[in-house]
Amino acid sequence: MEEVKLGILGMGTVASGLINIIEFNNSKLIENINKSLIISKVLVKNPDKKRNVNLDSGVYTSEAYEVINDRDVHIIVELIGGIHPAYEYIKAALNNKKHVVTANKALIATHGQELESLAVKNKVKLMYEASVAGGIPIINTISENLAANDFEQIIGIINGTTNYILTQMTDCGLEYDYAVKEAQRLGFAEADPSSDVEGDDAAYKISILATVAFGQRINIKDIPKEGITKISKEDIKYAKELGYNIKLLASAIKKNNEIELSVHPAFVPQDHPLSTVKNEFNAVFLRGNAVGELMFYGRGAGSLPTGSAVLGDIISIIKNCKIEEQSSNNSIKIVNKAYKPYYIRFEVIDKPGVLGKIANIFGENNISLASVVQRQKNGNDTAPLVFITHEVERKNIDAALEKIKNFKYVTNIASIIMVENFK
Amino acid sequence: MEEVKLGILGMGTVASGLINIIEFNNSKLIENINKSLIISKVLVKNPDKKRNVNLDSGVYTSEAYEVINDRDVHIIVELIGGIHPAYEYIKAALNNKKHVVTANKALIATHGQELESLAVKNKVKLMYEASVAGGIPIINTISENLAANDFEQIIGIINGTTNYILTQMTDCGLEYDYAVKEAQRLGFAEADPSSDVEGDDAAYKISILATVAFGQRINIKDIPKEGITKISKEDIKYAKELGYNIKLLASAIKKNNEIELSVHPAFVPQDHPLSTVKNEFNAVFLRGNAVGELMFYGRGAGSLPTGSAVLGDIISIIKNCKIEEQSSNNSIKIVNKAYKPYYIRFEVIDKPGVLGKIANIFGENNISLASVVQRQKNGNDTAPLVFITHEVERKNIDAALEKIKNFKYVTNIASIIMVENFK
Repeated sequence: MEEVKLGILGMGTVASGLINIIEFNNSKLIENINKSLIISKVLVKNPDKKRNVNLDSGVYTSEAYEVINDRDVHIIVELIGGIHPAYEYIKAALNNKKHVVTANKALIATHGQELESLAVKNKVKLMYEASVAGGIPIINTISENLAANDFEQIIGIINGTTNYILTQMTDCGLEYDYAVKEAQRLGFAEADPSSDVEGDDAAYKISILATVAFGQRINIKDIPKEGITKISKEDIKYAKELGYNIKLLASAIKKNNEIELSVHPAFVPQDHPLSTVKNEFNAVFLRGNAVGELMFYGRGAGSLPTGSAVLGDIISIIKNCKIEEQSSNNSIKIVNKAYKPYYIRFEVIDKPGVLGKIANIFGENNISLASVVQRQKNGNDTAPLVFITHEVERKNIDAALEKIKNFKYVTNIASIIMVENFK
Repeated sequence: MEEVKLGILGMGTVASGLINIIEFNNSKLIENINKSLIISKVLVKNPDKKRNVNLDSGVYTSEAYEVINDRDVHIIVELIGGIHPAYEYIKAALNNKKHVVTANKALIATHGQELESLAVKNKVKLMYEASVAGGIPIINTISENLAANDFEQIIGIINGTTNYILTQMTDCGLEYDYAVKEAQRLGFAEADPSSDVEGDDAAYKISILATVAFGQRINIKDIPKEGITKISKEDIKYAKELGYNIKLLASAIKKNNEIELSVHPAFVPQDHPLSTVKNEFNAVFLRGNAVGELMFYGRGAGSLPTGSAVLGDIISIIKNCKIEEQSSNNSIKIVNKAYKPYYIRFEVIDKPGVLGKIANIFGENNISLASVVQRQKNGNDTAPLVFITHEVERKNIDAALEKIKNFKYVTNIASIIMVENFK
């Protein structure tokens, strides 16, 4: 039987998942591709270290170009992560006419288009299904199965760490700091969780999804980001009471010739499918002009799910060798209006006329109100005052708050969170 | 630019969706496939009838073989539905070395394997994404993007009519008969709804999904079916109270070398993603041994969503011409155990000892109980008595009920509904 030889760069959790799947699903794979998959070289830091995968010790090397320049290797699988030296390795592999599969979101988000052109020039494939939402087949599905569609909307819960933290805060009433510690203890958050909780990870991923769906190169700097560090137990309580869950959403919306991207916490209606995406799970909600609304749900990380996505790309390369040039549509403008309803929570001194004055300032800024919740005083003589507005641009909200914050009976503008109405 | 010519058989709702998408997304399609799509022949009953699509009147013909035998047509799109004459037309098209795309679930469920072999023999493609779950890309995703996985579980809400009816009963408190009428009025149910409400439509679709996922030919007769005609408002009320929604599920479960298929109403936990699938929407929940749990959600019918799936197949054929033989795995046994928890509702005469006697009979049949709800009397001296059991084979439930039904204080065994625990 014909052999397909893989060279793997990096031997972390995804690589060991990939190697394990190839081992335990081997008979199914052979039946499917009618070829045998051989892992012939693996780049590691220390070739002598003992590892929990079933590979011959001779495959390990600490010399990257021994893998990349190996004439017998057909497909290079890059699982190092980070931009350098992954970028240099992938360039060298493509120039060597090797197909490349990668799970590297930072690299694809920043250098994807250049590497894609290099792959086309060399008549090989560059695939990166595993770079977004782990096991969920979303990138190839958008670019292949849903190719009949012009996409209007992509809204994802694509960071498992923050979704775990928010779920724990919502379902178990945990405080933010405690939920972060719990996520760290279970391995869902890093020792330094900032790339997750501040939205950087989700921004990389939505930029990749938007590039694939809209055929439009997105610069990561064009994506306004707000993480979950300011979400309080109190906001989560109000959200629940008003029929919502708070989720960290990454969104890319196209209207006419404008695209708007962002990463932000949002109120999601409890009966919307995105609301049931709990803990470390991910989901991507799409709207295409032919297919309508779709949602894809699954595990966004982990050794086997991410390995499944990497192996799916490898199988696709083996079964299908035609390479097509992707063109980029540059007539579309990237905007930042954030035209949505908003949840705003104030702490106010409980005097007659406070609500009226705030409502007036909202009115002057063309902000109309969908609901108001006024509550009993806190211990310190202040009371929470909660508004949900109708749709309005974020700049109107900011202009109104600029005035309201100088009003002496408003002691604190505690929260401003977008309400996602999926329009 | 190179042209790809389509011959369409049938001019119903899906065909007009397809033609409309090709028209309004034309520039995107050309960019993607780098060829121009031409609808060159369309089979209709009456070529002179006025239609709401933008096609030259010269493309219509009432003679099927004028389309199938046209030497210029590259791809035949079969949208007539039903088994005959679609079967004969597709055979002729494949023998003419034309690729075939179809949305015909009844035909693929009953003759899919024979037609697939004929396609392989003729080195052309037979694709049928639109035959299951309308716009949701599920078939190609299972067979391509998720090819790294051995599948363990497929559970779908894949009949929009019944899901619409159950949602209306749940959310608006409608009686079954009224909900059916409402579905008919809105076009979600046929004048004769039996194929939907009795589970036949879902059985066709789960047989196709199971065949694709397990590489195992499924005979439609191997699928036990129970529809929704016996679901009462009262069961829906108890389900809600106990934390569930009632859904019509089509399931295919593989354990070791056994596959179990069925179509049945089931209790689905309210916080499970399948519970938020409302009205005419469909969803397919999968578990693969690498990827873990996935769910795909979207519109399961309709002109544009189904047209999107048909066009996705057409684009895939144009971009990828390699044809591979699918082998069938025949070492797997199809079983019917239905090992699950069950919801059972009795009407009993409210006397001391009734509960104990029923519980004893359950015990004698190795049925252990997870919860019991006992309620106040109805007007007629009887009271409802509701049980949820732990996991047990259906035959034990039937054996117990056989005894219980002879017990004089049990006036009615009102309902037996499976509880879906997704194990």
